[in-house]
Amino acid sequence: MVGGKLRSQRHNRRVQQGSVILHAEMHCLEEAGRLTPRQYLNSVLYTTLSPCDMCSGTALLYKIPKIVIGENQTFQGPESYLRTRGIELVVLDDVECKALMDELIAAHPQLWNEDIGEV
Amino acid sequence: MVGGKLRSQRHNRRVQQGSVILHAEMHCLEEAGRLTPRQYLNSVLYTTLSPCDMCSGTALLYKIPKIVIGENQTFQGPESYLRTRGIELVVLDDVECKALMDELIAAHPQLWNEDIGEV
Repeated sequence: MVGGKLRSQRHNRRVQQGSVILHAEMHCLEEAGRLTPRQYLNSVLYTTLSPCDMCSGTALLYKIPKIVIGENQTFQGPESYLRTRGIELVVLDDVECKALMDELIAAHPQLWNEDIGEV
Repeated sequence: MVGGKLRSQRHNRRVQQGSVILHAEMHCLEEAGRLTPRQYLNSVLYTTLSPCDMCSGTALLYKIPKIVIGENQTFQGPESYLRTRGIELVVLDDVECKALMDELIAAHPQLWNEDIGEV
């Protein structure tokens, strides 16, 4: 969301494009295009899951001030680090997001492990 | 470099592809494709400049153990954080890398500011 309006909405593209960098958050930012610093400062990133190190770092790079996270029980990224760097995090603990992740992991455990860089 | 062999070598694509995520490091990882955890653990990332928050976070996600940095005077990313998370950093303080960055910033100051997310 930029300035209260939906700017882009995307999914992970690891399988569809063989991409190792297009997590949903990254794809959203890429599709949103080259925004001004002011636009980034007026944006909120909404995620199903707690952002990983890559997506967290990207939010820091562009100084996105707020991230609304569906749930962080399935996976938790560097949330405390993001807070120390000044990003506001809202964790919704949403049952639908959790169910969505449970379903994905049950169906594709290897893909899940690959996507979060797990050995 | 993966297992001592050059796997990919890329440049920033902000202008060429209008990309906000394809810093050289990101582009390298994307071009290298879906590697195994073992391959990432045997890789070294070589950068002209100290990696920004995004590229640093991506190295953390994929557990790249070592980054060789050309120089960190023009810009310094979260190097101490990377070290606390276990990544080995080697800063070469290379005069050629520094001259390359000086030239770029003198020619395109706005582009440089946009690329590092500066207001």
